[in-house]
Amino acid sequence: MRTKTVGGKKRCLTLSTTSPFSSITPDSDDEDPNPHLRKDIIWNRWVIFSQDRTKKPCDFKGKSTFNTNPSRNKPCIFCIGYEDECTPEIFRVPFDELNWKIRVVEHPYPALSRYVPELHNVPPEDTVLDGFGIHDVVIESPVHSDQLLELSPREIGEVFVAFINRIHELVPLGSIKYIQVFKNHGASAGASMSHSHSQILALPIIPTNVSARLSNMKDFFYQTGKCCICEIQHEDLLIDSSTYFFSLVPFAASYPFEIWIIPRNHSPHFHELDAEMAFDLGGLMRQTLRKISFQLNNPPFNFMIHTSPLHGDGTELAYSHWFIQIVPQLVPTTGVELGTGCHVNPVLPEDAAKVLREVIVPVFAHDRRTIGFSPPSKIVDYSEAFTTKEVFPTREYLLNWARAIGRENGFTVIIQRSTGVAATTCTFDLEINSIVSGGEKKRRRR
Amino acid sequence: MRTKTVGGKKRCLTLSTTSPFSSITPDSDDEDPNPHLRKDIIWNRWVIFSQDRTKKPCDFKGKSTFNTNPSRNKPCIFCIGYEDECTPEIFRVPFDELNWKIRVVEHPYPALSRYVPELHNVPPEDTVLDGFGIHDVVIESPVHSDQLLELSPREIGEVFVAFINRIHELVPLGSIKYIQVFKNHGASAGASMSHSHSQILALPIIPTNVSARLSNMKDFFYQTGKCCICEIQHEDLLIDSSTYFFSLVPFAASYPFEIWIIPRNHSPHFHELDAEMAFDLGGLMRQTLRKISFQLNNPPFNFMIHTSPLHGDGTELAYSHWFIQIVPQLVPTTGVELGTGCHVNPVLPEDAAKVLREVIVPVFAHDRRTIGFSPPSKIVDYSEAFTTKEVFPTREYLLNWARAIGRENGFTVIIQRSTGVAATTCTFDLEINSIVSGGEKKRRRR
Repeated sequence: MRTKTVGGKKRCLTLSTTSPFSSITPDSDDEDPNPHLRKDIIWNRWVIFSQDRTKKPCDFKGKSTFNTNPSRNKPCIFCIGYEDECTPEIFRVPFDELNWKIRVVEHPYPALSRYVPELHNVPPEDTVLDGFGIHDVVIESPVHSDQLLELSPREIGEVFVAFINRIHELVPLGSIKYIQVFKNHGASAGASMSHSHSQILALPIIPTNVSARLSNMKDFFYQTGKCCICEIQHEDLLIDSSTYFFSLVPFAASYPFEIWIIPRNHSPHFHELDAEMAFDLGGLMRQTLRKISFQLNNPPFNFMIHTSPLHGDGTELAYSHWFIQIVPQLVPTTGVELGTGCHVNPVLPEDAAKVLREVIVPVFAHDRRTIGFSPPSKIVDYSEAFTTKEVFPTREYLLNWARAIGRENGFTVIIQRSTGVAATTCTFDLEINSIVSGGEKKRRRR
Repeated sequence: MRTKTVGGKKRCLTLSTTSPFSSITPDSDDEDPNPHLRKDIIWNRWVIFSQDRTKKPCDFKGKSTFNTNPSRNKPCIFCIGYEDECTPEIFRVPFDELNWKIRVVEHPYPALSRYVPELHNVPPEDTVLDGFGIHDVVIESPVHSDQLLELSPREIGEVFVAFINRIHELVPLGSIKYIQVFKNHGASAGASMSHSHSQILALPIIPTNVSARLSNMKDFFYQTGKCCICEIQHEDLLIDSSTYFFSLVPFAASYPFEIWIIPRNHSPHFHELDAEMAFDLGGLMRQTLRKISFQLNNPPFNFMIHTSPLHGDGTELAYSHWFIQIVPQLVPTTGVELGTGCHVNPVLPEDAAKVLREVIVPVFAHDRRTIGFSPPSKIVDYSEAFTTKEVFPTREYLLNWARAIGRENGFTVIIQRSTGVAATTCTFDLEINSIVSGGEKKRRRR
């Protein structure tokens, strides 16, 4: 077999004097910037920033999770009233009340089992271990159709308090080395149940990712005397902030529109958070999830709480700083990521942060309760609920608003057709639960 | 907020005397085995094996890539005859022939750019680099609808030879530290073009995954004096073997039905492979991809060639051993993997290996050419081509066979309906290209 080289290598050596950095200032007009690499110092890995030339950062949309789960409107074992069919309860909030708001239960299909022998110390040469571990589910709402972003800041804060209370119960177990709290939203992000829930996985080992993260943070601390998370520069990367937290797109984000929520004050362990800070976090989390939902078309996402191992020697307290990582699923994982661990991110962090900072999240149906809007107690005619003078910037905003109004009133709106969305008045064909009601009208001004 | 502990911790301490290892013998009858962890010594990470109780290993199926790309049958810039619309060619096989079999071209949307300044040495404190790198595409066939698994062993071997020839051209560039060869099959595995192709990404850095892999292999070598890949025990894990290679499911596979193809003889660099070995590899690769396609419903997949960095100090030659990793995409990535790096694998490697070892891959249309089947030169009646005495074990096999026969004859079979698949004769409604031909018949014996 003969091959011919048609200038491949020569072309490789063609140089350009253009700086690949002309692209990283957020206001750059360069529409076709050169790629560059940034190193994530927390995980010590390179990320390739190679912009997708076919779309602008604000055009990035996920595949909505809205219609992906056929059982999304059917009651499930996580719903209020179905407690007897569910796995054993660990605790509920509020204590002992029939009308609970949050329940922590055993995971129906645990990754690890609390019923196998506990491991205390794993010899480093061992390559096989018994699968001891605790895998719990935190049911975030008694109502099947509620999404986390629809709860109030305090209700979301109570979910964080539930995580903390559960972790405090697990800390005394010497066999548990690390606790991973996470949420999968949408089937393609790994959610097997559509009822909104998070998970707590207590592990008998410190995962390699976690020990690598700690080790890299330690290196930074010994070189600079500072915690690398406390030192994050966030002027161009900032999205929002609250009393105790701020949200940003990390400088070397592995994923497009990846977001971190970081406590302002140095703190190594998530479970040291107090209730006041948890409620504050609830507000920022809600704002962030709403921005993701509206800007990115309600995509599948995961969030992970990155904290410190439970039983350190104390030295890690100086350099370890917990944070939440939120990853919307917008691009597939390819052979590059699987092979090298280097992610290719098509959206510059500064651009993603600008889009997320500036996105206007319309008032959600839920919020109307707190500003004087009360849904009719006897439901006959919904035209009033579907009438607004609000101006929606895009069709997606309008449709999401209509769905939220439906949810507020206790039914699911399925929009089969919509016409005239560009005009001041638009008409929908709505399917409400299973009753089809054609031609609902809603006013819309431009 | 008050919480109530309902026995959570107590239940954690309940012990079982059942060995969690009763499940890992392949013939175990235990249908609900306890989970366990295995350590992948190559990447030094734990994998959680937690079997999916809702299905047996042989029931695992992916979401077929067959209908996911609407442009799958339209000619594209990778097709023969469209060379002028394609990105610049680097070389073709055979040399200078109009009727080429393989072309290596510049990637239309490169992750890194050959047109920015070359990097030679990256200071370790640098966190931002120019995006210099070479990103090529290897077009595996001139025909749009050909899949890699449909080529002959020699043709697949020629694709490997094309990789090697291209790598040899890149080795003299001192700025290239590592070359990742990979393939994305199916849109959700990251393939943006449906025309079968692989990619070569030459990087200006050694990715962290690669240096970690080398470092772990080195540790094993210094502890045992042996290469950890040469030492792989594969009795229960073996799938197939050829003269120079064998395929297996790794002991601590991160993904269900993950497969490694390993050269029998110790070899650190993929590009040291000679043509005879490449053709042998082509046969084993074809067999493996066919098994994945038939057993797992033609799922999206990635393969990655894991080799050694280009410019080592020579010590790595003793402990480094290249191999190919094939990952069918069958389960979503969740917050556990993103948070901890520990994968949860619902299929035991021994079980996956047994299924893949035993799966019967029916004779493909392509193979018929070599055993006396010749397609009619003037196409009028295809009933003969669609008549067979072959016994198909499942409906999927039968449908895939029908599609392959269509492809063999130069058209695409779209099966709209099929009836009587359980009987000895079955009837299809076929759409052939855009001409609908109802009631094609095919005999099938049980």
